[in-house]
Amino acid sequence: MRISVAPVPQEFAGGDTGTGVVVVDVFRASTTIVAALAGGARFVLPVTDVEQAMRLAEPYAENEVLLGGERDCQRIEGFQLGNSPREYTREVVAGKVVIFTTTNGTQALAATKDSGAVFVGCFINFSAVADAVAGLEAVTVLCAGSGGRLSLEDFACAGGLVARLAKRTAQLDDAALAARAAYRTLKDDLARMLVSTEHARRLAGLGFRADLEFALKVDSIPVVPRLHDGRIEPSPA
Amino acid sequence: MRISVAPVPQEFAGGDTGTGVVVVDVFRASTTIVAALAGGARFVLPVTDVEQAMRLAEPYAENEVLLGGERDCQRIEGFQLGNSPREYTREVVAGKVVIFTTTNGTQALAATKDSGAVFVGCFINFSAVADAVAGLEAVTVLCAGSGGRLSLEDFACAGGLVARLAKRTAQLDDAALAARAAYRTLKDDLARMLVSTEHARRLAGLGFRADLEFALKVDSIPVVPRLHDGRIEPSPA
Repeated sequence: MRISVAPVPQEFAGGDTGTGVVVVDVFRASTTIVAALAGGARFVLPVTDVEQAMRLAEPYAENEVLLGGERDCQRIEGFQLGNSPREYTREVVAGKVVIFTTTNGTQALAATKDSGAVFVGCFINFSAVADAVAGLEAVTVLCAGSGGRLSLEDFACAGGLVARLAKRTAQLDDAALAARAAYRTLKDDLARMLVSTEHARRLAGLGFRADLEFALKVDSIPVVPRLHDGRIEPSPA
Repeated sequence: MRISVAPVPQEFAGGDTGTGVVVVDVFRASTTIVAALAGGARFVLPVTDVEQAMRLAEPYAENEVLLGGERDCQRIEGFQLGNSPREYTREVVAGKVVIFTTTNGTQALAATKDSGAVFVGCFINFSAVADAVAGLEAVTVLCAGSGGRLSLEDFACAGGLVARLAKRTAQLDDAALAARAAYRTLKDDLARMLVSTEHARRLAGLGFRADLEFALKVDSIPVVPRLHDGRIEPSPA
């Protein structure tokens, strides 16, 4: 198995159909997408800009669709939902199409357009997403980062996935080796480290502290979102 | 002190005059620049392309100047020197101007053009370069990487510098936290890890195994190159 990590989307070498990709945006897009599908959303439609989201919602009846996402960490005007995974409860999302746009996560998803199997990973579906790609010949973990810069939570999650996937014969690229090494130092005190970063403190300051706790509950929701033909649906186990 | 790391040049936020920058390209540009200055070169003129290097050499008499660097790891046609630090001995470089261009290292140096104090760091001048920036309010370690992707040796060196510089009150960005965490895992077996990466194996395969050993001798040459007005000269201790 070949395992590579793109610490930021700019380092993603581009997809090929033989490589599985796991898109990781721990705070919060990946976590929110997992929550939405676990809550029974029909599918999530990730889009990169707000106007496109509005346009894609038009053909749907009002009770069929929800607009979700954030800019500057906050719900977008005219959208029903923000980017807090705790909003995406079964009561709210069951049976609905969720059109979703965020600052970093949906941009990272867009970068995978020529890739083979594309999954959404984070801590809450950590083991499930690792199992989903464990049989592939090549896997890239694509970290969303923040504004083109490395995010510790995404890099640490990528490192954890590498540590779990890498058997003795695996070939790891430099970023995979680096992420795994970082994870090994951080893992015993992961939650404390990951809530102390600048981004986490910003989210906490805006009232989203509970989102951080939600996002750091490892294996709490074993749902594996898969992006296919522009839609994200649960991958069959 | 604020400490940040750019794992690849694309993540470098750009310079400001208040931030010291340490450009790290362990295999091999940083190491070679340190060796050249330690060997008594008058100064090193880093340039990003071969034609520019040739043009800048023209005004000098033949015995005043040396062209050095690599493309695809190999000496450039018409150049006197490659990118092997072991070529830059006192016999060869003393009193000479070295015009120098490499695939990643000199590109990273070019990215610092609006920065304040810019230094060249690697393992062979590790403690000396750390001491040179220890008094600054803000330091960015800019890793050259390889073709826009993270290089383990540069990231580990950056992590080591962060570990050494970060006092209790230091503010670290996410990449600095990640690099330090990776370094802590790798440090006890650093040389073995760093000669096993794809880039290191490629260099070894091309006959440059001794360069790797040269580059990994921590604190063997306590010279701190500083880039100022386009020239790299030894920083006064």
